[in-house]
Amino acid sequence: MSTNAARVAGRHFLQIPGPTPVPDRILRAMDMPTIDHRGPEFQKLGRRVLEGIKTIFKTDSPVIIYPASGTGAWEAALANVLSSGDKVLMFETGHFATLWKNMAIKLGLKPEFIASDWRIGADAAAIEAKLREDKNHEIKAVCVVHNETSTGCITRIPEVRKAIDAAGHPALLLVDTISSLASIDFRHDEWGVDVTVSGSQKGLMLPPGLSFNALSDKALAAAKGSTIPKLFWSWEEMLPHNEKGYFPYTPGTNLLYGLAEAIDMLHEEGLDNVFARHDRHAEATRRAVRAWGLEVLCREPKDYSSSLTAVLMPEGHDADAFREKTLAHFDMSLGTGLTKLSGRVFRIGHLGDTNDLTMLGALSGVEMGLSLAGVPHKKGGAQAAMDYLTECAARPMKAAA
Amino acid sequence: MSTNAARVAGRHFLQIPGPTPVPDRILRAMDMPTIDHRGPEFQKLGRRVLEGIKTIFKTDSPVIIYPASGTGAWEAALANVLSSGDKVLMFETGHFATLWKNMAIKLGLKPEFIASDWRIGADAAAIEAKLREDKNHEIKAVCVVHNETSTGCITRIPEVRKAIDAAGHPALLLVDTISSLASIDFRHDEWGVDVTVSGSQKGLMLPPGLSFNALSDKALAAAKGSTIPKLFWSWEEMLPHNEKGYFPYTPGTNLLYGLAEAIDMLHEEGLDNVFARHDRHAEATRRAVRAWGLEVLCREPKDYSSSLTAVLMPEGHDADAFREKTLAHFDMSLGTGLTKLSGRVFRIGHLGDTNDLTMLGALSGVEMGLSLAGVPHKKGGAQAAMDYLTECAARPMKAAA
Amino acid sequence: MSTNAARVAGRHFLQIPGPTPVPDRILRAMDMPTIDHRGPEFQKLGRRVLEGIKTIFKTDSPVIIYPASGTGAWEAALANVLSSGDKVLMFETGHFATLWKNMAIKLGLKPEFIASDWRIGADAAAIEAKLREDKNHEIKAVCVVHNETSTGCITRIPEVRKAIDAAGHPALLLVDTISSLASIDFRHDEWGVDVTVSGSQKGLMLPPGLSFNALSDKALAAAKGSTIPKLFWSWEEMLPHNEKGYFPYTPGTNLLYGLAEAIDMLHEEGLDNVFARHDRHAEATRRAVRAWGLEVLCREPKDYSSSLTAVLMPEGHDADAFREKTLAHFDMSLGTGLTKLSGRVFRIGHLGDTNDLTMLGALSGVEMGLSLAGVPHKKGGAQAAMDYLTECAARPMKAAA
Amino acid sequence: MSTNAARVAGRHFLQIPGPTPVPDRILRAMDMPTIDHRGPEFQKLGRRVLEGIKTIFKTDSPVIIYPASGTGAWEAALANVLSSGDKVLMFETGHFATLWKNMAIKLGLKPEFIASDWRIGADAAAIEAKLREDKNHEIKAVCVVHNETSTGCITRIPEVRKAIDAAGHPALLLVDTISSLASIDFRHDEWGVDVTVSGSQKGLMLPPGLSFNALSDKALAAAKGSTIPKLFWSWEEMLPHNEKGYFPYTPGTNLLYGLAEAIDMLHEEGLDNVFARHDRHAEATRRAVRAWGLEVLCREPKDYSSSLTAVLMPEGHDADAFREKTLAHFDMSLGTGLTKLSGRVFRIGHLGDTNDLTMLGALSGVEMGLSLAGVPHKKGGAQAAMDYLTECAARPMKAAA
Repeated sequence: MSTNAARVAGRHFLQIPGPTPVPDRILRAMDMPTIDHRGPEFQKLGRRVLEGIKTIFKTDSPVIIYPASGTGAWEAALANVLSSGDKVLMFETGHFATLWKNMAIKLGLKPEFIASDWRIGADAAAIEAKLREDKNHEIKAVCVVHNETSTGCITRIPEVRKAIDAAGHPALLLVDTISSLASIDFRHDEWGVDVTVSGSQKGLMLPPGLSFNALSDKALAAAKGSTIPKLFWSWEEMLPHNEKGYFPYTPGTNLLYGLAEAIDMLHEEGLDNVFARHDRHAEATRRAVRAWGLEVLCREPKDYSSSLTAVLMPEGHDADAFREKTLAHFDMSLGTGLTKLSGRVFRIGHLGDTNDLTMLGALSGVEMGLSLAGVPHKKGGAQAAMDYLTECAARPMKAAA
Repeated sequence: MSTNAARVAGRHFLQIPGPTPVPDRILRAMDMPTIDHRGPEFQKLGRRVLEGIKTIFKTDSPVIIYPASGTGAWEAALANVLSSGDKVLMFETGHFATLWKNMAIKLGLKPEFIASDWRIGADAAAIEAKLREDKNHEIKAVCVVHNETSTGCITRIPEVRKAIDAAGHPALLLVDTISSLASIDFRHDEWGVDVTVSGSQKGLMLPPGLSFNALSDKALAAAKGSTIPKLFWSWEEMLPHNEKGYFPYTPGTNLLYGLAEAIDMLHEEGLDNVFARHDRHAEATRRAVRAWGLEVLCREPKDYSSSLTAVLMPEGHDADAFREKTLAHFDMSLGTGLTKLSGRVFRIGHLGDTNDLTMLGALSGVEMGLSLAGVPHKKGGAQAAMDYLTECAARPMKAAA
Repeated sequence: MSTNAARVAGRHFLQIPGPTPVPDRILRAMDMPTIDHRGPEFQKLGRRVLEGIKTIFKTDSPVIIYPASGTGAWEAALANVLSSGDKVLMFETGHFATLWKNMAIKLGLKPEFIASDWRIGADAAAIEAKLREDKNHEIKAVCVVHNETSTGCITRIPEVRKAIDAAGHPALLLVDTISSLASIDFRHDEWGVDVTVSGSQKGLMLPPGLSFNALSDKALAAAKGSTIPKLFWSWEEMLPHNEKGYFPYTPGTNLLYGLAEAIDMLHEEGLDNVFARHDRHAEATRRAVRAWGLEVLCREPKDYSSSLTAVLMPEGHDADAFREKTLAHFDMSLGTGLTKLSGRVFRIGHLGDTNDLTMLGALSGVEMGLSLAGVPHKKGGAQAAMDYLTECAARPMKAAA
Repeated sequence: MSTNAARVAGRHFLQIPGPTPVPDRILRAMDMPTIDHRGPEFQKLGRRVLEGIKTIFKTDSPVIIYPASGTGAWEAALANVLSSGDKVLMFETGHFATLWKNMAIKLGLKPEFIASDWRIGADAAAIEAKLREDKNHEIKAVCVVHNETSTGCITRIPEVRKAIDAAGHPALLLVDTISSLASIDFRHDEWGVDVTVSGSQKGLMLPPGLSFNALSDKALAAAKGSTIPKLFWSWEEMLPHNEKGYFPYTPGTNLLYGLAEAIDMLHEEGLDNVFARHDRHAEATRRAVRAWGLEVLCREPKDYSSSLTAVLMPEGHDADAFREKTLAHFDMSLGTGLTKLSGRVFRIGHLGDTNDLTMLGALSGVEMGLSLAGVPHKKGGAQAAMDYLTECAARPMKAAA
């Protein structure tokens, strides 16, 4: 993508909540000739990624890998287990929960959408109450977003599981982990999730273009009765081929090279270390935000996301004008406020392949951008983050898993 | 994808009818950091590819770019213009036409499938006859495969267009150009096609992961009435975003870098030169086949594909045993015979980024493989191809467009 | 260079004074097949880089490009214009000036070495005095290091030129710009330099492996009389081939691909913008150092280097123990103190392809490392740098050249 | 190196006797950020390549790795063990032996050059005779080219060793293996070689930019007495640093990444398999040449090179006109005839990372080029090569070492 325009020196700071910076090892792994997707070399690759991806979702069940970006996996989750007219219970955690709800409508489903103010994760008690009301078990699935990318609030999935169980309700549990997988701990099997949706371009550190459905036996059973027309998304089409390491149609071969490398890298670092790193950068970011005198959108500490932090702008200041300044002056991309948060928040991504110094560079960029954009704030946010990270670094170093 | 197994020296010969060898320039263009798909740099890229791809389809209408492999674009074409229970007229040119027909059934459509022996392109007269019978215009679309990848037979699209017009039938014309676009001349607008389906991994020289729907006004109008549930494939979702150079959900950013490069490369060579090169390699291949005393699957010269040649094995010899030999001994992948041609044919891909010497290496590999596998044949196939290519080279060189 | 060891996340901070971070564009330009160095495609490349590199040295005279790292170009400069027993006048600006002097001895030359305390650039008055004493013009060359990489002090070359002229001395002027070229303004022709030595791995943003001699007519004339045995370094061997775009022996083809790209990139940014960026980062770094209460090694502001800053450690603290901490905890490489500065200074590189946020991440890493290593210092260095960079950013943006 | 000129499709056939096609694995290994050459990560790399390269030279003694192309290692070999005025015995195997002799003169040595007609390897008997004449042992070194790249004749090094021993002469044995190492069996220790010279861009499959001196104890002892001025080439400067995995000056870091990969790849294939592959392609090429009715330059089968074959043009036909045709029409580079062979021979490189089908593509290209250039020849050369390669493939497959 070379250009004749004035060159911007150094590396871009990609601090949106995904896509995330793709490590050189992954870019290089993908920078290889495409191979015959029906040949024996591909089969080895296919088996490697189909097995390996299970360790990331923490499941022993099959994980479907689509050669399509994340929105596709959302559609696949709904289209495989539900039928026209089915009721689904969804929770309005933010923009992406709303988009998923709108998709459900497009697919002919009848979502019940529990409203919220976009500053919390999904409320398990509210879900339980709705399920208890549903005496006839018309609700076929509960759909929640693990990490709401538009707000930086997480939903504690085990609580949702418990709510469903407490209500004695047979609904399936569908969870979107697009911006949490491989960044924030997630356990498909242990937490009793039926379909987990995810994508390649966040914690997995890949470019966009792959997406996932992790399944449960219950989801597979439900799929038998689904009447939504589909082929590309159909698990039934996919699974028999996957068993031999192949795919029913052309897979995203080069992205699969990258996926194999990404899985190796995550295990080299150790998943628990990966999660701890994300927690640390999230806390550093929040300390910076508070030191600036600004407010984190997410209201409750228990709901804080380790992938991103959405920051409320002071009244009368436009988040996008500020974001344009940081892009123009410091070559850093920050996340925009989406739909009803438009102009009111900006989002700092701290997920994927990053480290302390990059985060401090990024937070410095935010602080400088606030100055340039004339946004009222106190100095010292980057310093507060630095103090915290120094403190963390001073703790005894842990060995990798 | 390094390995500790015994190394095979030199470059793999990827002579399947796609994915095709990805040129270094394209691999390198994709080997770059992923950028913010909501930022201004992306917008420039988005506009560039959305405009550029039109020149390859030869259309002034919008072309949809899906971050999904080719089967998705098949589904999109049907799902956007048709509704449950709609009749479609399809022609059994081979395995892929059959798959498309099966998909139509999965999507709730009612395909009428004109049978054939897999050795010819679609018969325009038969299509015209069927349409004339359809007095009530129940048939909503005619679906044909431009280049049937399983057989190496092409369908002359202008004749199909004429057939529809001659029958005075309002059906839409849907054409699959997955293995012909940018290899064999195709003209979306001039030939009156309503939806053209294609993918990234053949003539466009990219890895798999992008696919396309080129549209017509009539298709856009039909889309308004479609009732098949969808969101990911929905043109309606896509088009307003495309107008500004963006996409409604995460696009396949790095593949789009490659697409921009591919479009430039095709124009640098000149599309007519690209087509002439494919014609030349196809003819060289057929001369080799005949010199070996083997038979080209495609029966009529008028139906010959310039992308691939399917070759019939002599009775009693297994095409796949032969293919395994060429892979094991000469590190060359050839296409397998699909479903009813399984074991009976092998397919030589001669599409995408290749040249005379690579083709002669490949044809030499076929000749050697035939010997090793004990397949009765005459020597001299590679020599016959070489004689033809020498003759072509001796003609005055044309300037590039 | 993948590894099974525990993975370090994110990008390494390479803050040594070279090699510098190689931009992706350059890495990708080099990641291409090697071509025939005697063919017409190479000739185009050869001409392009041989012409282009002149614009970086600001000369109309030939520039020799060696397929060898920088030390080679040092040797070449001496070996081409001098003869065994020749006297040369050198100035002890630091470690690299000392190494060059030692090399001169190895080559049979007789260096007169003006001593200094490694905290200043070369003193033009001292040079003038020595030359005035040299009534018989036994001194054949004055050799100075433009930017002493071990100390972060520059020598103002025009003053040295004036000193030579004022003394009316015919000595050649040889200048090492290994760590200044394309980072700090340098003008081969205007400043009357006879041989300028440089390398690829600093301001030119390339990996190591190429080095340069920019020539003057006087240097070319002197070369005729040189008796030091050589072939690889011989200008006489090189120049006739260069005239046609070729090289007398195998050139560093892939590095030349990168050099062509680097030259383009420097001009896209504009050389003056490149220099201003280096000045800005150097000043930000010095402000951080002072805020920490530490001392910049370079004594006089007029001698400050814009490529790197050497920082004195407080008495009783080991610079290398500190450097190991920053590497282990923050994955940042800093420059070590060399020979007589060993343990007493560390060096912060701020040259090549970098930007404000990367520099702030790096300075944050220094500040954190000082804490972890228990080095007495005040907080607020990174903040001071940030304040300065914010101030710079608030100035009206200049258009690129 | 993208271009707006008319694009040439497919991969270039680089059939010169080096540089050779760089495998993607090696290009990708080099396509990584440059690291600190004084840091611990570099040290691991340094140790890995310094140890690994010994297995390729088959020596337990140190191997010097220069960040310079091959001509430098020639100069280093002479400059480290000899002194001004020393006599050396050299053999005129061809252009490169002549260049080495000319270099010796430039370095102040007194080469005795045994003349030959460029169609044979060095004659051990002639060498023995000369040494026997040298009663006073004025000859300090015997210098031979293992594989003369200009002629395709090899010299059997064990015979030269025996000749020296038989003459009871103390001269050092210096051998150039630039175009044989890792292509044709070579054994530094077993064959009693004192200095082996080589480069990166042939059998090692790397771009140019690294070169080598493998040493013996006798060579190291001789180096102590050498008076040729040098620093960059000095073993004495290099060895103490190498012991710790480091280099005395900036090494060719990214090429070293590639070297590590290349060494792994050669061992994955197995060195004996690598040699057998080169032998097979050389024999296939000679069969093609004979079938065309042309003459191999190398006169005696015992002298045949497995790296390249030089082919004599029929009287009255210009080899370079023919080479231009193959380049223009078939995008294949062939080697030119050098100095006294100019226009009279062309050279086919069959070394490095290649395979049977690529070689058959290349030989087909030669055959087609002969036709286009109107060079009298018989058809069937490529066919003859194919017959031979089929025969080889039909033999039982060997397991890799």
